[in-house]
Amino acid sequence: MPILIVVRHGQSQANLDNIFTGWTDSPLTAKGVAQAKKVGQILAKRGYQYTAVHTSYMQRAIITANLILAAQDQLYLPIYKTWRLNERHYGALSGQHKDEVKARVGEKQFKAWRRGYSAVPPRLSQPQHDRRYDRLGVQVPLAESLAMTEKRLLPYWEDAIAPRLLNNENQLVVAHGSSLRALIKYLEGIPDDQINQVEVPNAEPIVYRLDDRLKIIQKEIIAN
Amino acid sequence: MPILIVVRHGQSQANLDNIFTGWTDSPLTAKGVAQAKKVGQILAKRGYQYTAVHTSYMQRAIITANLILAAQDQLYLPIYKTWRLNERHYGALSGQHKDEVKARVGEKQFKAWRRGYSAVPPRLSQPQHDRRYDRLGVQVPLAESLAMTEKRLLPYWEDAIAPRLLNNENQLVVAHGSSLRALIKYLEGIPDDQINQVEVPNAEPIVYRLDDRLKIIQKEIIAN
Repeated sequence: MPILIVVRHGQSQANLDNIFTGWTDSPLTAKGVAQAKKVGQILAKRGYQYTAVHTSYMQRAIITANLILAAQDQLYLPIYKTWRLNERHYGALSGQHKDEVKARVGEKQFKAWRRGYSAVPPRLSQPQHDRRYDRLGVQVPLAESLAMTEKRLLPYWEDAIAPRLLNNENQLVVAHGSSLRALIKYLEGIPDDQINQVEVPNAEPIVYRLDDRLKIIQKEIIAN
Repeated sequence: MPILIVVRHGQSQANLDNIFTGWTDSPLTAKGVAQAKKVGQILAKRGYQYTAVHTSYMQRAIITANLILAAQDQLYLPIYKTWRLNERHYGALSGQHKDEVKARVGEKQFKAWRRGYSAVPPRLSQPQHDRRYDRLGVQVPLAESLAMTEKRLLPYWEDAIAPRLLNNENQLVVAHGSSLRALIKYLEGIPDDQINQVEVPNAEPIVYRLDDRLKIIQKEIIAN
């Protein structure tokens, strides 16, 4: 029975400042670092071992993954970094204060952008260039709905995570609030109109025990 | 013209204690962490970019690599971890104080084990088991000479580092005193009887500019 553990990065500076982040590379706060270490200690105490770790191109997720593995004495494991696990791209909302956006557009629109499935945040006027994506030929999105995030994330699940789980290898995924909501929606078969009820707090691992077809046998959320 | 940067990890606890380390997973000291960050800052100032980073299975090298990439804002790069870049296995000397070994066996034998090319340190009586190697089917050596270290390191050079350099991609290698001596011997064509003069200090990057056949055009050692 393979185990899949998914965990959102520790608190970032943008989390602390209550700012829409998306693909912006906000660093961990001191609290975020401490949360990541604590996740590692909790998982170490339980003795989980993996064969691989998967994370995004963002430092807040990568450093969280490194800190978890260090605490678990498994730093030697491969950490695969992929833009497909990046946070949902918040488009023109990136860098904006959440309270200001809510005051400007109203609660209903704010919630649709933030927690809905198909609402696309206001798009950037032109594509951003960033060497980390340019070198892969990946065009940075102008904005992403949760549905768009799920669509670009699933090929990585199918190509890199699921095959290892099917080979009975435990996997650790360290990613973001919305990219994990997209993955959880897919894994748990949550309907489009109910995903707005799912929140993924910083640094609270979700442990899935799966059967040999990757159906969920047990789900446990570990508080930080 | 590809650039290859090789750097030994920052000071480890075993370095500080003057103890033979080998495959023992000694952590970085606070000084070692600071050295690694400084290497990253120096390389960041020079603007070096890579397409991949290569390190060993040891936390002192992996954490040094992570700290360097963090300071260079290139954490998203793949970090390949391989036992082939591990430190030379010091056999039964692992964990022993260098001064005590020297006092016991004399300066000549001590130097041959430590800096010679073909001298094999006293072997362990039986192979060690460690999940990180067991899972790969790799048998932990009973002890390694520098020559043996070079022999098991070169396949990784040939398969993973050289092809990328030949594709004009800069590479960063973060490894160990003796595994880097083995690599440097190969790269620079140093005769067997002269490799005892080569030392690789902690956290002092060596920058090689190479031609399109990977011959060295320029070598620069950057002090920490």
